[in-house]
Amino acid sequence: MRIAIVLYPGFTALDAVGPYETLSPLPGAETFFVAEEPGPVVNDSGSLMLVAQKSMSQVEQADILVVPGGMPEYIDVQVKNEFFLAWLRAIDAVSTWTTSVCMGSVLLGAAGLLKDRRATTHWLAMDRLAALGIEPTGERVVADGKYMTAAGVSSGIDMGLTLVGRIAGEGFAQAVQLLTEYDPQPPYDAGSPAKAPAALVAKFREEGFPQR
Amino acid sequence: MRIAIVLYPGFTALDAVGPYETLSPLPGAETFFVAEEPGPVVNDSGSLMLVAQKSMSQVEQADILVVPGGMPEYIDVQVKNEFFLAWLRAIDAVSTWTTSVCMGSVLLGAAGLLKDRRATTHWLAMDRLAALGIEPTGERVVADGKYMTAAGVSSGIDMGLTLVGRIAGEGFAQAVQLLTEYDPQPPYDAGSPAKAPAALVAKFREEGFPQR
Repeated sequence: MRIAIVLYPGFTALDAVGPYETLSPLPGAETFFVAEEPGPVVNDSGSLMLVAQKSMSQVEQADILVVPGGMPEYIDVQVKNEFFLAWLRAIDAVSTWTTSVCMGSVLLGAAGLLKDRRATTHWLAMDRLAALGIEPTGERVVADGKYMTAAGVSSGIDMGLTLVGRIAGEGFAQAVQLLTEYDPQPPYDAGSPAKAPAALVAKFREEGFPQR
Repeated sequence: MRIAIVLYPGFTALDAVGPYETLSPLPGAETFFVAEEPGPVVNDSGSLMLVAQKSMSQVEQADILVVPGGMPEYIDVQVKNEFFLAWLRAIDAVSTWTTSVCMGSVLLGAAGLLKDRRATTHWLAMDRLAALGIEPTGERVVADGKYMTAAGVSSGIDMGLTLVGRIAGEGFAQAVQLLTEYDPQPPYDAGSPAKAPAALVAKFREEGFPQR
């Protein structure tokens, strides 16, 4: 089973690594990172580099495609990158599962995928899905056919575990959860716009994502 | 504020990236990855590389030191690596906070740090802390003086948010939680030995970590 995780300049690290850590233990998995060119790819805040082992032109097939999100200014570059979008379409055409975290679903939508499907993205980007003809939902993990999309950044862990359960069964997914000790105990309860202080939510709705 | 995240061959990716994603938004943070030599460092399953921007000999100071864990066979290499351990001691001597995720606390202990302090690690490695004269606890995030240690893999996110709250206040930490949409909804409730199916826990206690 080939798992391809897409990288591009300005991706968000946890969007990629959450699914990586949960999906890569799948039996028989061959997990790799892929970008337009192989080599280090810098993230949204410029202080982290993950290495793409393969270039897009080297990869013609994957069983699971994972598209992480990134800060809006970097997403806006890729939604105009025809080579990048054509590669997403080509892999999706043969994938068993096509998945995204955060604004990765905006990239899938820009590639013409997810049309008329239910999907999710970062809570600050819901209107971008609707503008692409995709039905946005406030759920953390949304499955519609072979598409599984996750909300912001950290939700890729929940998406990965959900997908592992679908593919390898509940017992295997529980083993992955236990070994990654995923028994979350956040010190605050501010992880969604429904739970965070209203003033904080209003501030980000007005100002958008902060500069990193 | 300088945040140094240590890499070594066989580190666990999410151990490093969970704290990275939560700590790096701190006001004035300069976050970097450091290893014995600069360049790509391969993780525990061999399919992910993060880039160390700096070598240990280039780094003499950090305000926050983050030590991720790794699979036992790789931890066992570093606990005999005197250069690596001496560097941990030297940075700890000047750090404001020294932190770890998973078996990173075993590395701190091997460097002679955490002596007689309360700390935590992956649930499968508790005996290794005790053997180093460190008091193991089953809590997910343990603060003792300037040391903050976290349990297995995913717990680094909770540790990062806890530390952000201590440094920059509750409101700032809540903003980080909201922007990373950390509102965990695991599809199973098997993330700790107290919650997972007993047979699964017994299997790993008998067999140890699975080969990756």
